[in-house]
Amino acid sequence: MIGLDWGTSSLRAWRFAPDGGVLARRETPHGITALPEGGFQAAFAAATGDWVADGEKQALLCGMVGSRQGWVEAPYLPCPAGPAEIAAAAVPLPITGISAMLVPGLTCRDADGVPEVMRGEETKLVALLARIGAREATLCSPGTHAKWARVADGRIQGFATHMTGEVFAALSRHTILRHSLEDAPLGQGIPPGFAAGLAQSKRSGGLLHQIFGLRTRSLMGEIEQREGAGFLSGLLIGREVTAVLELGVAPPIVIAGADHLARLYAAALDSWDIPNESAGADLAAEGLTVIGRQLGMLPA
Amino acid sequence: MIGLDWGTSSLRAWRFAPDGGVLARRETPHGITALPEGGFQAAFAAATGDWVADGEKQALLCGMVGSRQGWVEAPYLPCPAGPAEIAAAAVPLPITGISAMLVPGLTCRDADGVPEVMRGEETKLVALLARIGAREATLCSPGTHAKWARVADGRIQGFATHMTGEVFAALSRHTILRHSLEDAPLGQGIPPGFAAGLAQSKRSGGLLHQIFGLRTRSLMGEIEQREGAGFLSGLLIGREVTAVLELGVAPPIVIAGADHLARLYAAALDSWDIPNESAGADLAAEGLTVIGRQLGMLPA
Repeated sequence: MIGLDWGTSSLRAWRFAPDGGVLARRETPHGITALPEGGFQAAFAAATGDWVADGEKQALLCGMVGSRQGWVEAPYLPCPAGPAEIAAAAVPLPITGISAMLVPGLTCRDADGVPEVMRGEETKLVALLARIGAREATLCSPGTHAKWARVADGRIQGFATHMTGEVFAALSRHTILRHSLEDAPLGQGIPPGFAAGLAQSKRSGGLLHQIFGLRTRSLMGEIEQREGAGFLSGLLIGREVTAVLELGVAPPIVIAGADHLARLYAAALDSWDIPNESAGADLAAEGLTVIGRQLGMLPA
Repeated sequence: MIGLDWGTSSLRAWRFAPDGGVLARRETPHGITALPEGGFQAAFAAATGDWVADGEKQALLCGMVGSRQGWVEAPYLPCPAGPAEIAAAAVPLPITGISAMLVPGLTCRDADGVPEVMRGEETKLVALLARIGAREATLCSPGTHAKWARVADGRIQGFATHMTGEVFAALSRHTILRHSLEDAPLGQGIPPGFAAGLAQSKRSGGLLHQIFGLRTRSLMGEIEQREGAGFLSGLLIGREVTAVLELGVAPPIVIAGADHLARLYAAALDSWDIPNESAGADLAAEGLTVIGRQLGMLPA
């Protein structure tokens, strides 16, 4: 079986053995907002054509590829939802020469009745449920739109989104703060300035005030340009974690995301003495095999 | 005397009678980041050349024109500071054919030692002090970088900045939220969606979560495109006021800014039953006359 986690800005693909083991993996920049000529079909062929030619007959896709701006729109399934309900709501995708299915997204309402949506993270949650069974846990999935989801009794109970990654990008490129930082990838470790930003996030005044502290520290020579992005990252992740902790979070916290981001969230949670663990960056792949087995795409 | 409030994105100029009355006013788009050919001198001449030709011999300037990116850099004066100290720290500006002075900015430190800076609003604060004497009050100056300043005992005691206006612009133009709103001026009244955004700001989850509620409400058809900008404005101003109230604010609150913004801040404060009043949009002009009298540019 071929599995795809196809998001807004990138496409990750895996080729699975019948036992769910990963035979090969690759990533292309063909997110649904960055398709090549030929659109979805061409992006799919570029990522998986040789695997199909080599005999793969099944593909399971998740992520923004199932959104209104995607290849085919898959409905949002309401929470609570478990692996069986998610598999049962999968939508066929007409791809020439292969039998393909699309994993549905999830929706829920917060305590105030405000709607929430996810596409892609439900597949990570299915993998987490396969690991922990009926026990309670919270998944933290960092990124452009970070998600915090509670699982219990073998189902996804609800979740909340924080626009942390996208706000970081908008503030660091499109406000006066751009003069106080280097707009470059943060790298693999804990970046300089991160701890100071995290400390700032725990002080008073609110986010709209605290971010101006980066500008003024920079004006006064109290922070270096190379520390600016780390400071802003620590400040925003710190505010996100503060809000999550205020809402109440069910331990254990399992972080599932790219290694460099998972490390920053772990550092933030550590600073509050909140136990946390990393699920690794391939939880989505694991979830695709679980759903694939439910759908008969992989042997049970 | 000629007075100029010369900011980042615009230049406001007044011609004053000897008693401080406004004889004429005008505004040009020549903010310090949008200068015409010929730079500062040309922008000054475009705004005031006919007044100078008609015999004006004195000019008093405030705002970002005194920043490092401005015409001449004026130092930041530390708080607490009063009108006499501000006037005494004014810096001469070499303009051909006229005697010109630059009002210094202010700086202070918050309870955590984080620096704060302002340029331009100190002139509004001088006018407020001239009105209320030694009494205590809080000035709210809305805008790109909103300022909240406490005055007492005839001096400016301290202040805090909130990047509300600039964050509104960055979020509404450079994030996924742009699909959920119309990027047009909010108009003069209370815009549609504002009250709902204000109500949302008082709920749980933090700003990074709450803003995503605009996206999901829009996806679910629970908010209209024409309400999006008002919703985001209400949410951000609501978060700003929440943070200000948590820090503690000394009544009365006097709002000094453009009418359409002053109205939104008044609506937000009203929703918390916090008494507030408007000082009108021309408080900076009034402050320039107070400093001008101190400097002998206008008769005492």
